[in-house]
Amino acid sequence: MSGAPIEAGAPRGPLAIIAGGGDFAPALARLAAARGMRIFVAALDGAADPKAFGAADLTVYRLGQLGRLLDELGRRTIADLVLIGSLPRPTFGAIRPEASTLKHLPHFARAFQGGDDHLLRGVVSFFEQRGFCVHGPAQIAPELTAPAGPLGRRTISPDQRGLIGRGFSLLAALSPFDVGQAAILADHRVVAIEAAEGTDATLRRVAELRASGRLKIGKGDGVLVKAPKQGQDLRVDMPAIGPDTLRNAAAAGLAGIALKAGQVLVGDRQRLGQLADELGLFVEGVA
Amino acid sequence: MSGAPIEAGAPRGPLAIIAGGGDFAPALARLAAARGMRIFVAALDGAADPKAFGAADLTVYRLGQLGRLLDELGRRTIADLVLIGSLPRPTFGAIRPEASTLKHLPHFARAFQGGDDHLLRGVVSFFEQRGFCVHGPAQIAPELTAPAGPLGRRTISPDQRGLIGRGFSLLAALSPFDVGQAAILADHRVVAIEAAEGTDATLRRVAELRASGRLKIGKGDGVLVKAPKQGQDLRVDMPAIGPDTLRNAAAAGLAGIALKAGQVLVGDRQRLGQLADELGLFVEGVA
Repeated sequence: MSGAPIEAGAPRGPLAIIAGGGDFAPALARLAAARGMRIFVAALDGAADPKAFGAADLTVYRLGQLGRLLDELGRRTIADLVLIGSLPRPTFGAIRPEASTLKHLPHFARAFQGGDDHLLRGVVSFFEQRGFCVHGPAQIAPELTAPAGPLGRRTISPDQRGLIGRGFSLLAALSPFDVGQAAILADHRVVAIEAAEGTDATLRRVAELRASGRLKIGKGDGVLVKAPKQGQDLRVDMPAIGPDTLRNAAAAGLAGIALKAGQVLVGDRQRLGQLADELGLFVEGVA
Repeated sequence: MSGAPIEAGAPRGPLAIIAGGGDFAPALARLAAARGMRIFVAALDGAADPKAFGAADLTVYRLGQLGRLLDELGRRTIADLVLIGSLPRPTFGAIRPEASTLKHLPHFARAFQGGDDHLLRGVVSFFEQRGFCVHGPAQIAPELTAPAGPLGRRTISPDQRGLIGRGFSLLAALSPFDVGQAAILADHRVVAIEAAEGTDATLRRVAELRASGRLKIGKGDGVLVKAPKQGQDLRVDMPAIGPDTLRNAAAAGLAGIALKAGQVLVGDRQRLGQLADELGLFVEGVA
């Protein structure tokens, strides 16, 4: 894995991984280290699990300690960073800023006034205005994303391919409305479209419709399609699936999951492929 | 009301109202009678409530008594009919066809093999092939649909108009995929899109997202938009709202409901307008 090429624009100095919750941040830290990068993990208190990073060089920061983090990045002459992992949307009052963070608050006060996308853009612009280069996890470690082709043994059938193509077209049609990272198709039609509720809730809805008899999904039928929206900043807001997505898809009676190849985070491909096999699902990247 | 013009193609002889569940069928029967039409109600057993039709000329039929219904329509020289009201999707085995119905079964056996739209088209084609003219409820009584303008005292504000325009554009973009009769927009974005779950479940989802704090809806924010899909047969499959839709919209914290004028059934406009006022909602048809 350390022999994989590093993309143009990849960091030459040390890389800071600003880590929220979930498995993606530790996986990225391991893959970056395996590529020979020097990494520094800034683990966000209450979101990241420091133990998951093993022996990595790591410090825990509260959101209110942004000033302290900037000082540390300066001391280490770190110019490159990645923001990765989940972060519960914080309340502005709960941040408890330290003195060195107070001067940065006006930037975030503005960013807080929009939706989640707005907040993310505000975070990116904050670091960029201070001379940092914000990288996407896929730029550092492309193997965190869905490859073109299946993760496990099962693959997409010709019938499923038609349904999947219709699903990706649907997501593309929704994209100008800044919505639609996922949809579920079964029984020759679109049965669920994700908006603010998230992918797992969308899958649970289909499981409930099926349990109540309002929806029939035959064997080999039923697909979840997932892709980024047009204009989505894949550096900080790439769509993602994980083991729970697969379990929920199986519980909903689906045949599998189709992902836009290279544009959806999957984390540990091998582990997800094994789980797909256990659950009898295909999980496949589509170019 | 009896002075309202009857549209071109309206029945000149008696009209059969084949009635499923809900308030729309009795309302249509009253409005048609008020227009001076002679009506015959074929109330579907287990769906329609015969008492709701007052003194109308009415007979109850099981689905398996289709042959008997056709005989009766012939005896009465009825050539015009309306299909209106909800019908739980029947299992093919539960229909228990009488002898006079058996010969019609092959037609419906084919229709049963598709989705709901396919079944509806099958029912329409069944009657059309036998020389009947199938009318839409809006052709018989346009006042059953949303007018252009508000049903109650509240009206759409300029801010809400922008959100509503975006919602209708979204539904139009979804239409080629045979999905999307309704969407909910709030907080400057699309927060829910209806697919197989129905409008009420879509509204309940938004209520839950709001209760859990994952979604903020300010005062005057939050709209449900509803319109037919392109190519939807408005004679037998017009989208509809009712008192529950308004109650669920209020429970979700929405400011109101925007409907494609003339293309969404609302039933008793006055009653729905009063309820809208009580709940503090706008309910408005948009041309």
